[in-house]
Amino acid sequence: MIHIREDQLIEKLREFYKPHPRIVNGFGDDTVIMKEIPTQNLVISVDATIEGRHFYPDMLPYEQVGHRALAGALSDLAVVGATPLTFLVNLEIPKRFPEINITKIYNGFEKLSSEFCISPSGGNITASERVGIVITVVGEIPRERNITRSGAEPGDKVVVTGDLGRVRTALNIINRHEIKKQIPSDHLEEILEKFYKPWPKINFMKKLLLDVKINSSIDISDGLGVDLSRIARSSQVEIVIYERKLPFKPYLRDVSRLIGAPLFQLVVGSGEEYEIAFTLSEEEFEKLKKLGYDVTEIGEVTHSPHVGVRLVKEDGSEVYVDNMGYDHLRG
Amino acid sequence: MIHIREDQLIEKLREFYKPHPRIVNGFGDDTVIMKEIPTQNLVISVDATIEGRHFYPDMLPYEQVGHRALAGALSDLAVVGATPLTFLVNLEIPKRFPEINITKIYNGFEKLSSEFCISPSGGNITASERVGIVITVVGEIPRERNITRSGAEPGDKVVVTGDLGRVRTALNIINRHEIKKQIPSDHLEEILEKFYKPWPKINFMKKLLLDVKINSSIDISDGLGVDLSRIARSSQVEIVIYERKLPFKPYLRDVSRLIGAPLFQLVVGSGEEYEIAFTLSEEEFEKLKKLGYDVTEIGEVTHSPHVGVRLVKEDGSEVYVDNMGYDHLRG
Repeated sequence: MIHIREDQLIEKLREFYKPHPRIVNGFGDDTVIMKEIPTQNLVISVDATIEGRHFYPDMLPYEQVGHRALAGALSDLAVVGATPLTFLVNLEIPKRFPEINITKIYNGFEKLSSEFCISPSGGNITASERVGIVITVVGEIPRERNITRSGAEPGDKVVVTGDLGRVRTALNIINRHEIKKQIPSDHLEEILEKFYKPWPKINFMKKLLLDVKINSSIDISDGLGVDLSRIARSSQVEIVIYERKLPFKPYLRDVSRLIGAPLFQLVVGSGEEYEIAFTLSEEEFEKLKKLGYDVTEIGEVTHSPHVGVRLVKEDGSEVYVDNMGYDHLRG
Repeated sequence: MIHIREDQLIEKLREFYKPHPRIVNGFGDDTVIMKEIPTQNLVISVDATIEGRHFYPDMLPYEQVGHRALAGALSDLAVVGATPLTFLVNLEIPKRFPEINITKIYNGFEKLSSEFCISPSGGNITASERVGIVITVVGEIPRERNITRSGAEPGDKVVVTGDLGRVRTALNIINRHEIKKQIPSDHLEEILEKFYKPWPKINFMKKLLLDVKINSSIDISDGLGVDLSRIARSSQVEIVIYERKLPFKPYLRDVSRLIGAPLFQLVVGSGEEYEIAFTLSEEEFEKLKKLGYDVTEIGEVTHSPHVGVRLVKEDGSEVYVDNMGYDHLRG
């Protein structure tokens, strides 16, 4: 038996709610009621973080569990450059789950959500055999914006934000002390930082989309290979990317040798990166470069009839990477 | 290993999506994008249905699992008389879960959702050790409407739709064949029908709210006692209800004797009924009666300083029923 009643817990969680101009009714009813604005479209997405699948409690403090759960959900909003408005939390917790851990999870939400001036406005709590967090995020975009996975066009440049590979590297080394010892501490810290505190590219994409028009986009949640293949299939195009162009921290080359995994696998197969991959015309790409955005061109959309993602390796050989990343049903 | 890839499964589930005038982007992206209308407010709610908590597969066919999961979510919209617009599904399934069962769950959604001309427009799939369905429903209400749990006022009549007690009765008898044999088959069928196919009071409440003004409302998801106590606490009032006024099928009296449970416990403690309890002024209540709505007055909001729910039993004794029902953290 848990030491707190459901309604008492909900009452406590109310503390995390902060009024928002778009929210009519606050926290505590079964529904969240929001004002609509005719110049905007509403953007809604759902994301799950489950103990034993997405995290192990002995590997990740609960505050980070909360942070990562919300980061993953908000990243879906970043894909279309949406402004977050609020989020709802479905929390599954074991019956004897200490209340302090719930507070830690919500503290993790808050450290991230306060950056975007949003808070949890509702949700649901239920007992389970383990922790599960399903977050519904709500955001808005200008009505005229229309970015999907299916808009990639032959001739488009393929671009990715930030760097890739640190998250998969972190998962590889996190419980291997003999390997961690061999990595310089500043590098190790950077690797773990990206795993513990991924940051959704909300503000970056909002700004970028004021300056250029992009044709398709997705976030790197399961791995560059898997995620780009979603754009390729939705748009019915081939995407070619080049190993030599992939953005990664230079020290990953040494770490990949320590781990014994090819570097391109660490980079192309790394999920929960929450970087954004997008395609745009050459003309728009030139604008982007001139404006000095921190993005990397990694390939292009081709005129090939083949649908999928082709990686050109440094030695000139080629490999299809459509399955490189995480499949939630295969693990 | 499951026999289907995540993306293949999502592609299959796309068949269940039907275009809707408020949805901009259809099915398959990470986000659902919806048009906003300035005369309306958006209503969002989240509800969970978990194997081993809310259902056991050997007790409930998967089509009914889907139906009940969506009914519970939609019921939150009925509370405020919202018109459903769409829903998102977070599906947790075991790795070897047969694809046919996923189709059955979605068929269960469809049989209910098609009545409201809505369909699933997005969601998320993840592997788990058991089935879990978290549904985010989205609906709309006229902007001027403002019904919460906190609007109950002393002097209000307390009213409930339909009848109560069949669901708890069903749970009591479902695996007890010797008891089921003693119940006339038409009664047994009615009892099980309410358990297998609860129907959210969407259309009923939409119509009712065009005719009368109500001050507070909630759906009976955990039990009349627990749920009314939520209105009482949010509104800081006392609610008094009368055993002799409670609406139930007359044959439940006999069944309660067979089970050996007091009738009022079956009625006041029955959850997942998805009937609506609401309070309204005496004047509005008179209107409701004249219009012939199928509702039952079960009590009133009093001027007492005590906050909670008091049940006056048939023998004149009184009992507080604030905890009568289901607490998701205590089970």
